[in-house]
Amino acid sequence: MGKLSERSAYAINPILEEDELATQLHKRGKKVIKLNRGDPPVYFPTPKYIIDAYVKALRGGKTYYSDATGIDELKEAVQGRYSRMYGLHIDSDGIIATAGISEALHFLNDVMVNPGERAIIFKPYYTAYIPRLKLAGGEPIFENYDEKDGWNIEIEHVRASIKRMRANKEMDKVKYMLITNPNNPTGTVLKRSILKDIAEIANDNDLLLVSDEIYDEIVFNGAQFTSISKVAKGQPYMILNGASKDFDATGFRLGLMLLPENDRLSMELRERLRNFAKVRLSVNTPAEYAFAEGMSNVKEHSKAIKSMVREIEARVNYAYDILKKNDYIEAVKPNGAFYILPRLRMDMLKIKDDRDFVVKLLKKEYIQLTRGSGFGAPNHFRIVLLPPKGILEYSLNKINDFCESISK
Amino acid sequence: MGKLSERSAYAINPILEEDELATQLHKRGKKVIKLNRGDPPVYFPTPKYIIDAYVKALRGGKTYYSDATGIDELKEAVQGRYSRMYGLHIDSDGIIATAGISEALHFLNDVMVNPGERAIIFKPYYTAYIPRLKLAGGEPIFENYDEKDGWNIEIEHVRASIKRMRANKEMDKVKYMLITNPNNPTGTVLKRSILKDIAEIANDNDLLLVSDEIYDEIVFNGAQFTSISKVAKGQPYMILNGASKDFDATGFRLGLMLLPENDRLSMELRERLRNFAKVRLSVNTPAEYAFAEGMSNVKEHSKAIKSMVREIEARVNYAYDILKKNDYIEAVKPNGAFYILPRLRMDMLKIKDDRDFVVKLLKKEYIQLTRGSGFGAPNHFRIVLLPPKGILEYSLNKINDFCESISK
Repeated sequence: MGKLSERSAYAINPILEEDELATQLHKRGKKVIKLNRGDPPVYFPTPKYIIDAYVKALRGGKTYYSDATGIDELKEAVQGRYSRMYGLHIDSDGIIATAGISEALHFLNDVMVNPGERAIIFKPYYTAYIPRLKLAGGEPIFENYDEKDGWNIEIEHVRASIKRMRANKEMDKVKYMLITNPNNPTGTVLKRSILKDIAEIANDNDLLLVSDEIYDEIVFNGAQFTSISKVAKGQPYMILNGASKDFDATGFRLGLMLLPENDRLSMELRERLRNFAKVRLSVNTPAEYAFAEGMSNVKEHSKAIKSMVREIEARVNYAYDILKKNDYIEAVKPNGAFYILPRLRMDMLKIKDDRDFVVKLLKKEYIQLTRGSGFGAPNHFRIVLLPPKGILEYSLNKINDFCESISK
Repeated sequence: MGKLSERSAYAINPILEEDELATQLHKRGKKVIKLNRGDPPVYFPTPKYIIDAYVKALRGGKTYYSDATGIDELKEAVQGRYSRMYGLHIDSDGIIATAGISEALHFLNDVMVNPGERAIIFKPYYTAYIPRLKLAGGEPIFENYDEKDGWNIEIEHVRASIKRMRANKEMDKVKYMLITNPNNPTGTVLKRSILKDIAEIANDNDLLLVSDEIYDEIVFNGAQFTSISKVAKGQPYMILNGASKDFDATGFRLGLMLLPENDRLSMELRERLRNFAKVRLSVNTPAEYAFAEGMSNVKEHSKAIKSMVREIEARVNYAYDILKKNDYIEAVKPNGAFYILPRLRMDMLKIKDDRDFVVKLLKKEYIQLTRGSGFGAPNHFRIVLLPPKGILEYSLNKINDFCESISK
């Protein structure tokens, strides 16, 4: 690899790791059930009113570069959404449209992290957080979502770690703290009291607090979602969101970086992020019009999201009940997003690790999952619970049978 | 800037530098003529057959994530295009769809350049080459397109520089050599003999040769375009292309990285670039279907590109004739793309530099250009020559008058 950069080894995505094997199986005539990628439009068609707006933009000639940080209509729609849902005002300069949260993570790390600097990331994490941090030369400091506490945050552990780092004068190299709420891969909605503590810790330690809230409307089983904006007022924080999940439009590749505050760091970030956006000119222009309509047409969105979340809730709970019958795994019941992250009871199973489990399952049952170690959770695996009950029933029973077949 | 990364200062785009000033003027009721951004769909509607294919994909539910490196239909269309136009076979694994050439440059630099390493870039260069290289920790080695020789490459200068670097043992830090053909900002189509020399130099010095050919069908005034694939057979090279210019669809944000060869470096690059693509999941899916149709429907494309290039040729030549009347500038006549890069005769003008020229012109005449120093060509300025003759005539006469008004 002499000709390639050292950092290039960090570009990995465990979610798509088995894609080549799945394609081979497919070519051999096997029908692979893909439960690895959280891609709602595969199972829930993107709402027609959003597609109509997209088509209108295309037919209306909106195929040129747009403003680097997003069209006015999109920014107004974002402002309306956050005002309505969270009573939050965001200046139009505090809104930056990106090519998905993927690009937002790229910008975040490039704008903040010098080589050798660090960020506090909670395990299990969404896969892309780590490559983007490492590609910028950074290193994660891992804290934990606690499986025993329903994947909530071990707050005292966070305080203790920071105290130790502070004593060792390591804290000035830590740039941001990143949480995911609702969580991918665990499907957990964080409690408000924990978010308050997290915001306080970030504030006390002069850290940018980043909250990835891409699933903020996909909440069920009676859970209450709290946006970081409710508990982090007056300190620098950033919300990540986008069209992919709530608006059921992953293939648009539209994300949002939101900086609602006016402190010095937030203002510097707005300016520099605008420059990053300018370097790549713009995001997909007609998709911006579609996403703007997605947010502005409250009546249509309300219908679409309610119906999708109701169905997701039913599927997740249905899947959970099947998995409960499996003695070789243990799972926390999700109340947001559409994933579950069961733990493999390794002492009872004849497998080497979670990767071995995922590869063998794919080869034997043609079901593609993602290894938990890809999310920083070894001995776990993630299932995407979006498919209809028939597919879920078939797949989860196969997973249960497979566990039985490899039991000690 | 203590909280931001050092690299964040490299994120600049001179083309959009005056956008805030232009917006201010606009708000004061001034109509700004924007000749700063090379955005064909503003003046030439994206062909209907491409829009139809986009709409069909949207109506057909193609709104999910696609394969990270591009849908099969797009890769087949790329293969068809390159086979037809250049007799070139490209493996489907040698094709990576990106969010514009912007993302391709990001991937190229991240995958190849370690901090402190270098790339050979020719001045004047397209603006985004430098930030993307520097954001990866790299530094440019500048060679020149020679204005006196119609912006062709000073090949002996390149040989001499490399010889000197080789003597100083600096060449092992040089990763790639990047040319733009047809060129932005000069509008020059490079001669085949020069491309042959460039390919030979890259090969002799073990450099990846990168050719940005995004304007490869926008060639006129009798010029002949030569793809790098014609002269670099058997050595590692990469072609950059996309939907933006030939297919008149900048706002789709679709680019291509092509690696036609099978040598070790090309194969390693294919694999690692696929991983980079996977980290950000996919590009805009329905736009891929549109771009695929753009390339596959040869009959419709042929009509559209012929008509657009004929019109661009007329506008460029019309503009050139008006600029010739200006004694305070000198310009090489373009034969490709849709830019011109006149040189300011600084000895005859009362201005500090090209930036001063651009800002004063914008403030006085409400015409937005880009400073030449943004392309590595101080004392020049770039004009986008896409608007209809009426707007060009008005704007160029205003530029001529403005030069007169600031003459010594």
